[in-house]
Amino acid sequence: MEIKVLKDILSANNQIAERNRQLLDSNNVFAVNLMSSPGAGKTSLILETIKRLKGKTRIGVVEGDIRSSLDAEMISKEGVSVVQINTGGECHLDANMTYSALGNVPLQDIELLLIENVGNLVCPAEFAIGEHKKVLISSIPEGGDKPFKYPLMFHIADAVLINKIDLLPYLKFDTEAFSQAIRGMNERVEIFQISCTTGEGIQEWLSWLLTQIDRR
Amino acid sequence: MEIKVLKDILSANNQIAERNRQLLDSNNVFAVNLMSSPGAGKTSLILETIKRLKGKTRIGVVEGDIRSSLDAEMISKEGVSVVQINTGGECHLDANMTYSALGNVPLQDIELLLIENVGNLVCPAEFAIGEHKKVLISSIPEGGDKPFKYPLMFHIADAVLINKIDLLPYLKFDTEAFSQAIRGMNERVEIFQISCTTGEGIQEWLSWLLTQIDRR
Repeated sequence: MEIKVLKDILSANNQIAERNRQLLDSNNVFAVNLMSSPGAGKTSLILETIKRLKGKTRIGVVEGDIRSSLDAEMISKEGVSVVQINTGGECHLDANMTYSALGNVPLQDIELLLIENVGNLVCPAEFAIGEHKKVLISSIPEGGDKPFKYPLMFHIADAVLINKIDLLPYLKFDTEAFSQAIRGMNERVEIFQISCTTGEGIQEWLSWLLTQIDRR
Repeated sequence: MEIKVLKDILSANNQIAERNRQLLDSNNVFAVNLMSSPGAGKTSLILETIKRLKGKTRIGVVEGDIRSSLDAEMISKEGVSVVQINTGGECHLDANMTYSALGNVPLQDIELLLIENVGNLVCPAEFAIGEHKKVLISSIPEGGDKPFKYPLMFHIADAVLINKIDLLPYLKFDTEAFSQAIRGMNERVEIFQISCTTGEGIQEWLSWLLTQIDRR
C-alpha cells in the first residue's frame, strides 16, 4: 500500500517533469539538475561556470534550498537571473516546485538553466524535475564509499564531478578506485576531477557542458 | 491537507519513539542519535568512541543505511554488537525502524547505544527515534553556511561536533563564526572541535558523553 502511494507520487511527478521539459525545449533552454551532499560545492561550481561562460552562453539559475537565499544572493551578484525555491522543509526539489519556478525564469533570454537541488544524496535522485542532464558533485572529503551507500544517486547521474581534488594530498582517497566503483554501477557516466578552488578540471567540465547544449 | 498528513505521521512517530525510550530506560541504556551529511565522519567517530571506551562502558551500535552494510562490518570487527537497518530508499531512520532494530540489540548487556542515522541534514531532524541525545557532526569541508541552510538540524542538536579540524590549514573556515551561528539558533547546544584523524578533541567529546550517561 505504501509502495503504491509512492509509485503514484513518482508517476505524477514524472508527468509534470515531462511538461517542464517540453516548456524548456520550446524555449531552446538546456537544463541541468545539480545534486550533491551539503557543502560538496554546487554553488561554487555554478559561480565558476557563470564566470567562465560569460559571453559564450546565456545562463539562468534556479536555487533550491529548504530556507534562506544565501546562495541566490551570491549568484545574483554575477549578473544572471536567479529564482529561489524555498522547499519549506522538503529534502528535494520536485517537478511541481520547479514548474512554479520556471514561470519566473526568463526562458526566452537564456540557453542554459542550472538548477541547484537541495543538498542531499537520497531523495533528489528519485524526483525528475524536467532536466536534460543530472549532474552529481561528489567531493573527496566525503570519502570513497559513497557510491555504495547512495547507489541510486550514482546510478542515475549523467556526469559525476569529483570535487575538491586540491585536498588530495591531505586525505586518503583513491580517485581511480572511486571512478571504477561509479562505472561499475553506471556504464554511461562521464567523470571529471575538478577543484573550484584551483580551477583544475573546470575547463573539461565546461567543454562537456557546451557539447551537451550543442547536441540538444 | 498535505500538512495534516505530515503532522499525523510525525505524531505517530513520536508515540513509537516514546515507547523506544521507555524500552531503553527500562534496560538502563543511554541512546545517542548520530546525524550528519554523508561522509562527515559518523562511522569514524563511532569507531574512535568504541576504541577509547573499551573497558569503561559497554556499547552497542545500530547502523542506518539505505543499502549496504559496509559500516556495520567495519564496526563489528571492534567486537561490539551491531544491528544493521537498511531503509531501502528512505532518507532517514524513523521510530518504527528503530523499534524493529532494538529487538535485536542485547539491551541487557550494554549501557550505551550509538545509532548512526542515514547521512542527510534534512529529514533525520524531524524524526525522533527514542534517543536521549541528538548529536550532529558537521565537518569543516562542508563550509560555514550549513546552520543557515539546514536550520532545523542545528536547532534540535544537543551537541555539535565540528569534525575534520585537521584540515583547517587548507580551507577557509572560521570555527568561531560557525560556533556563534549555531549558538544563535540553539542556546543549549554543546560544541566540540574534533578530528577523528589526529584524535584532537575526542577526549572532550567522550567526557561529555560519559557525563550524560551518568546523569541519566
